[in-house]
Amino acid sequence: MEKFSPIITLITDFGTSDVYVGVMKGVILNINPNAQIVDITHAIPPQNIHEAAFTIQAAYRYFPKGTIHVIVVDPGVGSKRQTIVCQTDRAFFVCPNNGVLSYLLQDIEAEETCIPDAVNIENPIYLLPQVSNTFHGRDIFAPVAAHLSLGIPLAQIGTPVHNLVRFPVPAIHISEGTLTGQIINVDSFGNLITNISENALTTFLLSSTSKGVAVAELHQRAESVKFEIVAGNMSLKKLNSSYVESEVGEPLAIIGSFGLLEIAVNMGNAEARLGLKNGDPVIVQRFD
Amino acid sequence: MEKFSPIITLITDFGTSDVYVGVMKGVILNINPNAQIVDITHAIPPQNIHEAAFTIQAAYRYFPKGTIHVIVVDPGVGSKRQTIVCQTDRAFFVCPNNGVLSYLLQDIEAEETCIPDAVNIENPIYLLPQVSNTFHGRDIFAPVAAHLSLGIPLAQIGTPVHNLVRFPVPAIHISEGTLTGQIINVDSFGNLITNISENALTTFLLSSTSKGVAVAELHQRAESVKFEIVAGNMSLKKLNSSYVESEVGEPLAIIGSFGLLEIAVNMGNAEARLGLKNGDPVIVQRFD
Amino acid sequence: MEKFSPIITLITDFGTSDVYVGVMKGVILNINPNAQIVDITHAIPPQNIHEAAFTIQAAYRYFPKGTIHVIVVDPGVGSKRQTIVCQTDRAFFVCPNNGVLSYLLQDIEAEETCIPDAVNIENPIYLLPQVSNTFHGRDIFAPVAAHLSLGIPLAQIGTPVHNLVRFPVPAIHISEGTLTGQIINVDSFGNLITNISENALTTFLLSSTSKGVAVAELHQRAESVKFEIVAGNMSLKKLNSSYVESEVGEPLAIIGSFGLLEIAVNMGNAEARLGLKNGDPVIVQRFD
Repeated sequence: MEKFSPIITLITDFGTSDVYVGVMKGVILNINPNAQIVDITHAIPPQNIHEAAFTIQAAYRYFPKGTIHVIVVDPGVGSKRQTIVCQTDRAFFVCPNNGVLSYLLQDIEAEETCIPDAVNIENPIYLLPQVSNTFHGRDIFAPVAAHLSLGIPLAQIGTPVHNLVRFPVPAIHISEGTLTGQIINVDSFGNLITNISENALTTFLLSSTSKGVAVAELHQRAESVKFEIVAGNMSLKKLNSSYVESEVGEPLAIIGSFGLLEIAVNMGNAEARLGLKNGDPVIVQRFD
Repeated sequence: MEKFSPIITLITDFGTSDVYVGVMKGVILNINPNAQIVDITHAIPPQNIHEAAFTIQAAYRYFPKGTIHVIVVDPGVGSKRQTIVCQTDRAFFVCPNNGVLSYLLQDIEAEETCIPDAVNIENPIYLLPQVSNTFHGRDIFAPVAAHLSLGIPLAQIGTPVHNLVRFPVPAIHISEGTLTGQIINVDSFGNLITNISENALTTFLLSSTSKGVAVAELHQRAESVKFEIVAGNMSLKKLNSSYVESEVGEPLAIIGSFGLLEIAVNMGNAEARLGLKNGDPVIVQRFD
Repeated sequence: MEKFSPIITLITDFGTSDVYVGVMKGVILNINPNAQIVDITHAIPPQNIHEAAFTIQAAYRYFPKGTIHVIVVDPGVGSKRQTIVCQTDRAFFVCPNNGVLSYLLQDIEAEETCIPDAVNIENPIYLLPQVSNTFHGRDIFAPVAAHLSLGIPLAQIGTPVHNLVRFPVPAIHISEGTLTGQIINVDSFGNLITNISENALTTFLLSSTSKGVAVAELHQRAESVKFEIVAGNMSLKKLNSSYVESEVGEPLAIIGSFGLLEIAVNMGNAEARLGLKNGDPVIVQRFD
């Protein structure tokens, strides 16, 4: 197999109008000029660890094995919070130990893959000579990622960390014929993405106990399965297969590209139309 | 000649704040880690096929021969609209068959080069294993582009398409001494770009029938050629050679970098100053 | 050492919603498909030479030796202003001769490194065949950068330029116990970055004449060094070591990642909170 450039991705809340992202890229390329740098996004709202956690979880599985992901959303920069490298079967994650891996770690546990290795970044030879208290993206995360891309093993970077900081990932609640979830992300199209997975929804609606019931079966049995999805003032009685099944401008419910229930508007913006936001409840009522 | 990385460009309406563009890049690099990905823009207004069509036509000729252009502005995702690869002498275009190639195809016809090949994307081995109804950028366009960059021929991807969807590209109209065009793009500086080409303008103003009369000749004969350019409330009696010929803050007419007549403001924003928008008429009156 | 791709960085005021940046990348890759293009930023406010000058100065030292930096903030495009390549020990700079190198040149002088070489871009074989009066990023700067990345020496590109245009970089003023500086940059977090360097501040506060007194010493002697930092209605009596030392939402003063005194708000936006902007004075009063 042909040799290829190691991939380093970036997720930050730095925006792209300042010099900060460019400086991180310079630091990486100064250490490993062959690194291939990929921007995932720099538009995480400032200091929003939750959104960074959602983003890396949604992205990492699509990248080649061994990709190095750098996540710098770091309100605690300069405090005693740790800076870490976490390694899984699939990828490396270079970030503050502040919860940005919360969704990802839940995912890994659900898949019952092996426990990730993690180290506290300690070895100064892999950092910039002067480490500031204000910009660890430049001084710690970028150079460590670049050294990882050169093949430096975790054991040389620091000592094991056993407590990965995690915030409680919003869970769904099921009580009798009611499934209660919430909006966990609003994308730039205004689609309202919930924490209700395809599998959770079909299992609930079909009262099935077998895992892996696809939404396709739900669509086949649509006539016999009666339900209502309520979010804010809106109520929907069906699950779409595509946006275009609904009239232009009409709200709809669909299993979106994250494998999660989304509220959308065909050719429109559900956030603006419905006035809903992150954390708002989305309730599925089953009529047996 | 040294071997180089195949280039894949991206034009989408996804914005850069969500994970969608990053996911597409992950999919591409997972199939061809040597691909070189270039963002043209992700800021096409949501579902605006016209703007996507203008953008790819304006960009493609500057890229190396064989570049693969992916255009995902796709309001019909999940409907029966086709997903296609179109190949010309110069480049590959991977996109929905929804009109995003309209300007480009008109260009190719005008240059009387050979007819482009196009196939309907059908072969599942070049797609992601699961194809959603909501994100063909990830599931179809990105993987097909990556496989093209590995040298997979069109014939393996699908069967020929003969009907490339095209919207009517806005045409200019000439009647006696009046040329009527319109604004077809407003850039982020506020420059108002029309559909009146340098060649159409000089041919009209000089009453010349020979093709390829450059605007330089128009400038040489400026004294003897009298005309007026009218857009909204504004009227201009000359064509600038550069922005700086006009006073700061003053509107001006110029053949811009697309080879099209533009209305601009030196050191200012013509859109804000004149209150004009896409589709508004721009009229050139010739005084014989 | 392994051969690697030459790096070309871009700083422009083009934004990323139009096709202009993509076109420049196409032109570069068409000449040198192995060039590695890095966006520093395209969000310089339109025609703002000062911000471009601050940006390139803040970024260049982090990139590998030999990096080619292209800076296109060019209100004089189409006028008689020169287009230049400037070469230092460390990098190449391809830009209009309009002051965008002002901060950088002051930096180089302060470090007493050798005088940079500069040439006026003249040789048409390194430009696009047709040079417009409106888009030198595409027609001049991109192709020249690409040719530089192939190893073309300065002497082949044009003849020496001896007058590099420079605007007066805002200087600090010290009078008795008062140091007067100003805000020279506001980043997207709302941090207010001044022209008061760490070295200038510590030298002033410690009344030391030895260069290179670090702020660490200032922190050690904090008890005995009394001062006040005034900006707008705000007054601060200490210098933070990190953002998190202050209460959430409180203004603070800190030596930031540029090595300059910054006014920030922990987990907040100092620009919005204090209503200050570029050019506003920041005064340090020493109490002996």
